[in-house]
Amino acid sequence: IFGGLVLDVKRKAPFYWSDIKDSLNLQCLASVLFLYCACMSPVITFGGLLGEATKGNISAIESLFGASLTGVSYSLFAGQPLTILGSTGPVLVFEKILFKFCNDYGLSYLSLRTSIGLWTAFLCILLVATDASSLVCYITRFTEEAFAALICIIFIYEALEKLFHLGEYYPVNMHNNLDNLTFYSCQCSPPTNASDQLLQRWNQTGYDSSDSVPWSSLNVSMCKLLHGEFMGPACGHHGPYIPDVLFWSIILFFTTFFLSSFLKQFKTERYFPTIVRSTISDFAVFITIMIMVVVDYLMGIPSPKLHVPDRFEPTSKHRGWLIDPLGENPWWTLLVAAVPALLCTILIFMDQQITAVIINRKEHKLKKGCGYHLDLLIVAIMLGVCSIMGLPWFVAATVLSISHVNSLKVESGCSAPGEQPRFLGIREQRVTGFMIFTLMGCSVFMTSVLKFIPMPVLYGVFLYMGASSLKGIQFFDRIKLFGMPAKHQPDLIYLRYVPLWKVHVFTLVQLTCLVLLWVIKASAAAVVFPMMVLALVFIRKLLDFMFTKRELSWLDDVMPESKKKTEDDKKKKAQEKLEEESRLEEEEECKLKVCFDGSNRLTIPVNSFSGSQEKVACVRVDVSPDSPGEGSTTETFL
Amino acid sequence: IFGGLVLDVKRKAPFYWSDIKDSLNLQCLASVLFLYCACMSPVITFGGLLGEATKGNISAIESLFGASLTGVSYSLFAGQPLTILGSTGPVLVFEKILFKFCNDYGLSYLSLRTSIGLWTAFLCILLVATDASSLVCYITRFTEEAFAALICIIFIYEALEKLFHLGEYYPVNMHNNLDNLTFYSCQCSPPTNASDQLLQRWNQTGYDSSDSVPWSSLNVSMCKLLHGEFMGPACGHHGPYIPDVLFWSIILFFTTFFLSSFLKQFKTERYFPTIVRSTISDFAVFITIMIMVVVDYLMGIPSPKLHVPDRFEPTSKHRGWLIDPLGENPWWTLLVAAVPALLCTILIFMDQQITAVIINRKEHKLKKGCGYHLDLLIVAIMLGVCSIMGLPWFVAATVLSISHVNSLKVESGCSAPGEQPRFLGIREQRVTGFMIFTLMGCSVFMTSVLKFIPMPVLYGVFLYMGASSLKGIQFFDRIKLFGMPAKHQPDLIYLRYVPLWKVHVFTLVQLTCLVLLWVIKASAAAVVFPMMVLALVFIRKLLDFMFTKRELSWLDDVMPESKKKTEDDKKKKAQEKLEEESRLEEEEECKLKVCFDGSNRLTIPVNSFSGSQEKVACVRVDVSPDSPGEGSTTETFL
Repeated sequence: IFGGLVLDVKRKAPFYWSDIKDSLNLQCLASVLFLYCACMSPVITFGGLLGEATKGNISAIESLFGASLTGVSYSLFAGQPLTILGSTGPVLVFEKILFKFCNDYGLSYLSLRTSIGLWTAFLCILLVATDASSLVCYITRFTEEAFAALICIIFIYEALEKLFHLGEYYPVNMHNNLDNLTFYSCQCSPPTNASDQLLQRWNQTGYDSSDSVPWSSLNVSMCKLLHGEFMGPACGHHGPYIPDVLFWSIILFFTTFFLSSFLKQFKTERYFPTIVRSTISDFAVFITIMIMVVVDYLMGIPSPKLHVPDRFEPTSKHRGWLIDPLGENPWWTLLVAAVPALLCTILIFMDQQITAVIINRKEHKLKKGCGYHLDLLIVAIMLGVCSIMGLPWFVAATVLSISHVNSLKVESGCSAPGEQPRFLGIREQRVTGFMIFTLMGCSVFMTSVLKFIPMPVLYGVFLYMGASSLKGIQFFDRIKLFGMPAKHQPDLIYLRYVPLWKVHVFTLVQLTCLVLLWVIKASAAAVVFPMMVLALVFIRKLLDFMFTKRELSWLDDVMPESKKKTEDDKKKKAQEKLEEESRLEEEEECKLKVCFDGSNRLTIPVNSFSGSQEKVACVRVDVSPDSPGEGSTTETFL
Repeated sequence: IFGGLVLDVKRKAPFYWSDIKDSLNLQCLASVLFLYCACMSPVITFGGLLGEATKGNISAIESLFGASLTGVSYSLFAGQPLTILGSTGPVLVFEKILFKFCNDYGLSYLSLRTSIGLWTAFLCILLVATDASSLVCYITRFTEEAFAALICIIFIYEALEKLFHLGEYYPVNMHNNLDNLTFYSCQCSPPTNASDQLLQRWNQTGYDSSDSVPWSSLNVSMCKLLHGEFMGPACGHHGPYIPDVLFWSIILFFTTFFLSSFLKQFKTERYFPTIVRSTISDFAVFITIMIMVVVDYLMGIPSPKLHVPDRFEPTSKHRGWLIDPLGENPWWTLLVAAVPALLCTILIFMDQQITAVIINRKEHKLKKGCGYHLDLLIVAIMLGVCSIMGLPWFVAATVLSISHVNSLKVESGCSAPGEQPRFLGIREQRVTGFMIFTLMGCSVFMTSVLKFIPMPVLYGVFLYMGASSLKGIQFFDRIKLFGMPAKHQPDLIYLRYVPLWKVHVFTLVQLTCLVLLWVIKASAAAVVFPMMVLALVFIRKLLDFMFTKRELSWLDDVMPESKKKTEDDKKKKAQEKLEEESRLEEEEECKLKVCFDGSNRLTIPVNSFSGSQEKVACVRVDVSPDSPGEGSTTETFL
């Protein structure tokens, strides 16, 4: 009991001081600024959606406060502080269903939610106590990549979808006759049939009847409030056409995406000294956001902006910062709450642990170890705290965490231009996470600055995050193989050992899982989504019957591609050496005979003596006169 | 007399059949479609500008007809049919000044123009007769690149400028209050002070006074015609704000640029078989234009479109297709016309020959030879014909010609992905040019199709052409060197032999020339522009005093970089071999001693015998255990 947890604490405690010390680097500042901008919008958007779903019981300010509180504690005490917490889709769906249920059965939503939250926290702590987190070893690359790919695609999809949605908020007149612009207007006019309800509405606002309302002098929001009708050639379906905003948003969106991608890869350009290039690369997203904010401000087009709550108090006046788990609900709800809590626990466990597995991947070369049990404990405790305070729940957010890790990559400094810089490790520390969520907590006081950030710019940042997180996923490399003629395929390690068609089958299975997950996520059954992620683990187990163990070890292993390749090359070399030695023994007579056959090949068999052991070498030198550099040399042994 | 011309004809005549045969390739179709789209817009725009400048005496239809006529004859008979003829800025300036002069002194513009044109044609033929085109040998890379760079920059600048100008035609309300859109309108209203002139105008249109004009029901064009004033919050400076069109145009512009660039380099991707990739790459611009036309049509935003004249008759009713060189002018104008004709001749000679030099560069590996004299003869004859018919004059257009050559590049077929494909040559033939200009002549009958092409898309194509033509210019590589730390500089041949500061001085001189040319071109003195290009040749001569002959041979030579490098490498190798041999003779005793010192280095001195000559080698093999591939081998000679 709690054995894993104790080990986690013991493992992580010695690094605590270095977790603070290691953050003294400009890159960490860049990371904080980038992720602060990146995290703000989802937290506020999620809060807004939750506010809609729960009719203002939990909204933007609660979301902001909860994220900040959970994030700060997590980055201070968790086992893997590189993980960034955020709000996830399934949680939103869960809250929606719960709210509807409570409304239908006359229960107090906030109280029931609190008791479910406390149960979930309890169950999670139980999982910690029983070392259930050690089950993560069943989460292989197959599951991990299918999940990560799904989340990345959702990120990209949502970024584009939000842009499309702007087309609804800012409708555009597509078939405008420019010569008739003098007649182009959209005025408010009385509705054709005024119901009693409408009359009442008018009375409330201070008008007796339709005639007393000054329709033509109402602005858009008043007209909508009084249910007037919009009349004129400049009217869309739900109000006047809005000029320019949509296209300006599209320009902001794509410029943000391309500019940040361009600045990010600026590291590998030839210009400027390395330090300038890497600083630009580190601050890529932040610089982009700054530039776009200035451009947007100078253009003055009223594009949609980030709206941050400007006062620190609960959205609803009917609630405080502490919620009673029982409230007006009957006593048995306390016990029944355990049932949905079970579902909730699976949801949180899967979301949290898969993301943690992705972050702790061997590819990232982390040196300070992981702490799955400790992670889950902190999440569980904060879940309890958030429940009592009536704040939303937060778990590890995949794309944000990957972006965080990517922004802290240390790469070989003096990389030659054009060349891919060598990856050295991650700046593992607790300060960036702490700063991001502290800043988020302080955002309430920075409304006057934040309101200049256009939303399309933030959507562009999402697209960038989604697209750049996709890069490291092997699954996509394998999908790309479908469109590639064999001769153009890159030298991937699994292609050396697994037949191409089997690789394709593996990819197809994974793709099918992805599509299924997508369908479930998009359908009404979204709450069972974490169960399906769990199912992925079993599907992977089924693959054991289709593939040999050896094949799976190449396709579904956690060791990074490059390392494997090196080892494979070494092994091959060793084997070649053996073969060569036996071959040379046979043709002992070739010793010292130098054959310069007049063509461009010069074969020099050589015996070399190192200590007591005899080594035999056969060096072949290619000297083609038309190759520009030094004659290329192939050495057939060592 | 005419010696050069006869030689040109003798040289080119044997290739005439192959000039037709060699065009049987899909790439040529791609080239025709691309350049047809690319040429249409400048010819029509130029015609429009000329129409404005000459009050409709020469306009779009004359421009189209003239370009087609000249282009067809040129591609049938010229020495270098890869050159594409077009209209150039200086010609426009010249016509403007001439028209103003004629108006001021009451002379007939068209007649005077015809006599100048005939003089120019005569002078050009004189230049052909005296073999003046052989002076092109003084046009070195220095002049050539400064000129080409200028034209490319002008192309890019004009593409962007045209986009900016759309901001004037389609003004945008930058500070729109979206909530007040119900009051947003811009109506026509009577002008505040109606002058007598205006009253007259109204009378002409059929109204007695200001009161009888139905102001509020006038559309934009009628309101402008009757000089009404635009009143309302939706009004800009010169009329109503136009929603969406500007931003949509910006989106079309940049999408065209990026999409065509992306499709062009699709050849080097890993996906699809080579044939598919190279077809996509060849048709890049045409595919892009097609896609953008469809997108634009589906969106329905009234973006500015290409307007092609739809009837074949002179724009002005006061002229026919044949112009009398004397007309109503006094007889001495026929003689005086020789003076401006001299200027005109320099202009046409420089424009034509520099472009021809650029096209005939060694880098392009042309096999069918050049024909400067023949080129100039055809241009001169067509200039005479155009003058008599009252059509604008056409000479070689630099960027269009470079784009034409680039679109006909043959590259090594089975290029590995990622790798730069090897350049094999150009599809030299006459058919693409012939087809482009035949199609252009037929455009009058294709108005119904061409009117769907949005102008911003064509501007995007210009940007693409300008940017891609810049690529081959060494001058820009040298400018880039300013921002590059020494260690990141590429291995350029001139950097091997010329000190960096001298390279920079050379670049700076060239840059100064470029800026001067730009200033002259932009100022009122644009007509002297060809003189200044001529001056470039002399500035280059002055450089002889600053640089040694050897340095200039590296910086200002026409041999392609890659070829030079190969030769240089060969020379170096030969030298190293000599040095090595003498060195080895000295340390004869090292022979056959193999030193494997336990570190990672294995030195194997070897004597090799080939025939009677003794060769000595010292091969050093690096065997670092951590490097993944085969041990790297350095060979110190051969």
